[in-house]
Amino acid sequence: MAERKWQGHVFIGMSVDGMIARTDDDLDWLTGGSEETPEDAGFTAFMELVDHMVMGRSTYDIVQSFGEWPYGDTKVLVLSTTLKTGDSRVEVVRSFEEAVARLNDDGARHVYVDGGRTVRTFLAAGLISTLTLTRVPVLIGEGKPLFGAIPADIPLRHLETRTLNGGAVQTRYAIG
Amino acid sequence: MAERKWQGHVFIGMSVDGMIARTDDDLDWLTGGSEETPEDAGFTAFMELVDHMVMGRSTYDIVQSFGEWPYGDTKVLVLSTTLKTGDSRVEVVRSFEEAVARLNDDGARHVYVDGGRTVRTFLAAGLISTLTLTRVPVLIGEGKPLFGAIPADIPLRHLETRTLNGGAVQTRYAIG
Repeated sequence: MAERKWQGHVFIGMSVDGMIARTDDDLDWLTGGSEETPEDAGFTAFMELVDHMVMGRSTYDIVQSFGEWPYGDTKVLVLSTTLKTGDSRVEVVRSFEEAVARLNDDGARHVYVDGGRTVRTFLAAGLISTLTLTRVPVLIGEGKPLFGAIPADIPLRHLETRTLNGGAVQTRYAIG
Repeated sequence: MAERKWQGHVFIGMSVDGMIARTDDDLDWLTGGSEETPEDAGFTAFMELVDHMVMGRSTYDIVQSFGEWPYGDTKVLVLSTTLKTGDSRVEVVRSFEEAVARLNDDGARHVYVDGGRTVRTFLAAGLISTLTLTRVPVLIGEGKPLFGAIPADIPLRHLETRTLNGGAVQTRYAIG
């Protein structure tokens, strides 16, 4: 079995109260009213860094609703125990362990980890090395939070903060 | 009954995952490792603005454990239905309505609103006009969150963001 040569990276937009989506997965609050959307802000440069991506099934469903596939030729693993798809842009993996093994075997170097549950799983496993969080200036109250329980405190190292058009605040942290 | 001439202000430290205290109210993670603690960073200037303060009973108990009373001569209302105290630095109010009436009667202008539950109550009532959030670079996973359910989205207006020593990111937002 190949050893791990990759680092996980998170790049995600969230509300000031920590939500990455409304309860019904609506993302209207995320882009509304801003000329420079969080997804533009540094996203292209970020995608140039990554060679692989892992996301959960819910995120895959949401991304498909975007119309445009935002990940170019980046190899995308979708975590799902049930998904069957003819979508040649993705590869389905059945478990966290299978995702990790696949990334190791592929010689992945920089892996974009996306979706709340998937991010939490990789964070708890110590597999995330940078977090780029873009806080959109709104409180939505209820929804799907990015963060959740972790086995122990995770200290972060502040790398950079910048304010985007529309008042979003983007901070990049390193872990470890 | 006097009319309201005051605005509510929040000035609070939190983890990157949105907690203002551990489940047992421990704040060790908030000040640990940083030379410039969130409480120093702009806190003195903030206190010069405010003339009144409102906090919940839990916050009052925590502040008493600090040893030093950080609020000088600022008039402090403590929200509690049960507290009896000979502490001349505070005045106990029995309900949110009583707190608001007292601030109105007093001719308050700038009110520091502190403590998770109290902040959420005043936010939901539309009585907060600025939020100064200082994000300390750590994930603690479990604890007491600042934010919670609200009747409707609250759009924020970004005023200023700065990075403090130790990597905390302080952002000031206006509401309304």
